[in-house]
Amino acid sequence: MSMDRLIEAIAEKQNPTVAGLDPKLSYIPENIRQEAFEKYGKNLDGAAAAILAYNKGLIDALYDIVPAIKPQCAYYEMYGWQGMKTLQETIAYAKEKGMFVITDGKRNDIGTTMEAYAAAHLGITDVDGEEIEAFGGDALTVNGYLGSDGVLPVVNVCKKQDKGMFVLVKTSNKSSGEIQNQELTGGETLYYTMGMMCEQWGEELPGKYGYSGVGAVVGATYPAQLKELRECLPKTFFLVPGYGAQGGGAKDVLPAFDKNGLGAVVNSSRGILCAWQKEGCDPAQYAQAARREAIRMRDEIVGLVGKISL
Amino acid sequence: MSMDRLIEAIAEKQNPTVAGLDPKLSYIPENIRQEAFEKYGKNLDGAAAAILAYNKGLIDALYDIVPAIKPQCAYYEMYGWQGMKTLQETIAYAKEKGMFVITDGKRNDIGTTMEAYAAAHLGITDVDGEEIEAFGGDALTVNGYLGSDGVLPVVNVCKKQDKGMFVLVKTSNKSSGEIQNQELTGGETLYYTMGMMCEQWGEELPGKYGYSGVGAVVGATYPAQLKELRECLPKTFFLVPGYGAQGGGAKDVLPAFDKNGLGAVVNSSRGILCAWQKEGCDPAQYAQAARREAIRMRDEIVGLVGKISL
Repeated sequence: MSMDRLIEAIAEKQNPTVAGLDPKLSYIPENIRQEAFEKYGKNLDGAAAAILAYNKGLIDALYDIVPAIKPQCAYYEMYGWQGMKTLQETIAYAKEKGMFVITDGKRNDIGTTMEAYAAAHLGITDVDGEEIEAFGGDALTVNGYLGSDGVLPVVNVCKKQDKGMFVLVKTSNKSSGEIQNQELTGGETLYYTMGMMCEQWGEELPGKYGYSGVGAVVGATYPAQLKELRECLPKTFFLVPGYGAQGGGAKDVLPAFDKNGLGAVVNSSRGILCAWQKEGCDPAQYAQAARREAIRMRDEIVGLVGKISL
Repeated sequence: MSMDRLIEAIAEKQNPTVAGLDPKLSYIPENIRQEAFEKYGKNLDGAAAAILAYNKGLIDALYDIVPAIKPQCAYYEMYGWQGMKTLQETIAYAKEKGMFVITDGKRNDIGTTMEAYAAAHLGITDVDGEEIEAFGGDALTVNGYLGSDGVLPVVNVCKKQDKGMFVLVKTSNKSSGEIQNQELTGGETLYYTMGMMCEQWGEELPGKYGYSGVGAVVGATYPAQLKELRECLPKTFFLVPGYGAQGGGAKDVLPAFDKNGLGAVVNSSRGILCAWQKEGCDPAQYAQAARREAIRMRDEIVGLVGKISL
């Protein structure tokens, strides 16, 4: 099961973090951009080529110490279909290097339409009998506002294709409470209700380390809720955004982990992508700076979480 | 303002409907598929070419009588970046023909990431100073589970670029109540709360016909809720899925309209796309069959709604 593969990679590398690949052009060293623009023009093709080169450099520098990447679809879509081609090529490159890929698309729809999203990002597209992988991620983030009709089609694809998913439960942003913290007549909050649905959906995808294939997104910026949800959702693995640039620290993410150091994977995007800018180092060393930050983050989190054991 | 343009197109054509372009390969006549596969291979390129040819035929047959199309992103993404190229080309073709394009992506994220989605689908992508339109829709469907941080970045792009959006409020699927009908401690439902937030977000995008640039998705399959929301959300224009194949009829969508016949645009996807299969006509006549169904649907709805006046 896919979440088992993520957990094994985390334990093997003793690193419960994921590198968020949210490649804004302004994060990319000038020479990489110029080379791509000279070859393809200052257009979507050029931008997509620059991002691919940048991503490959990052993956080369990270794959032996970081178990997973999380490309954020929005930063590829904004460069059109050319950007989506770079998304596909980035995913393929990371998988070649043995990394687990969480496609952050927050996709949502119902029935056969949600099946189409699941086919796109986790499954197989049938072209008149030919079976082709479109984007090929290992897990997909999903928004559960539409209820089971929007989630079960992904669960089915996960079951067939050995993939996983993360449902938005309590997101890291300031206004996440406007909807997610609404208190229901039974006394519980909406995010809690969504979390309990993850536990239930996960019964279809049991894992050998106690965590199902239906994970949850829970932000590092709300440590109290992270603690509450870790206790209430023993079978749900957490993807934790909000560490670093968004304000969450290592102490804030600690409640996401169980006594074996399992239970969560913590994302950092800007912290890793912009490490070279923050360090003020030679732009040619951007990937090495990313590696230094990835190691610092790993050591900081593992220093508190302790040894990760299966 | 973008919603004004949609309303004007609806009034001009006296047709409050939108054709959902959700092109499964199995909906496409054999000869179109074979021609594309012979030219590009039985692969994602071939599939994407077949879909584009099919879509262009539909747009040619519909553009003078139907004001808008609604391409569903999932059915393009499942054919990889090649499918996304077809999405971009379909949108460009429909706009050339004067149609309004609602990109059905149900996108959601926060802050700069949501800005990236808005740039991708409604705005302008900045490539080192060059301003390029990536997908170029006129309106985008959005999932509001993340609260204002996920919606306001789109509102800002809509303001600058003369575009619009539709936030999921009460969706047409069977299980939509699992989350959306949850009753909050104040006594109201979650979908009502989301609807009231649309009214509030819409204050930033006022329109000259009384409807703002922030619309709502409300399913035809829940006519009582449609009526309730029409009364409570006087400034929110509705995108109504669920007519036809999903079970909603013309009587069910009637409550979505105001006394001037404005207030909603009703979507039909399969009904129009598969009209040739339902009719059992010559596959070469697929576009004419789509036109016949679009006229039938228009006449059925306008027959109840009456004259649409600005």
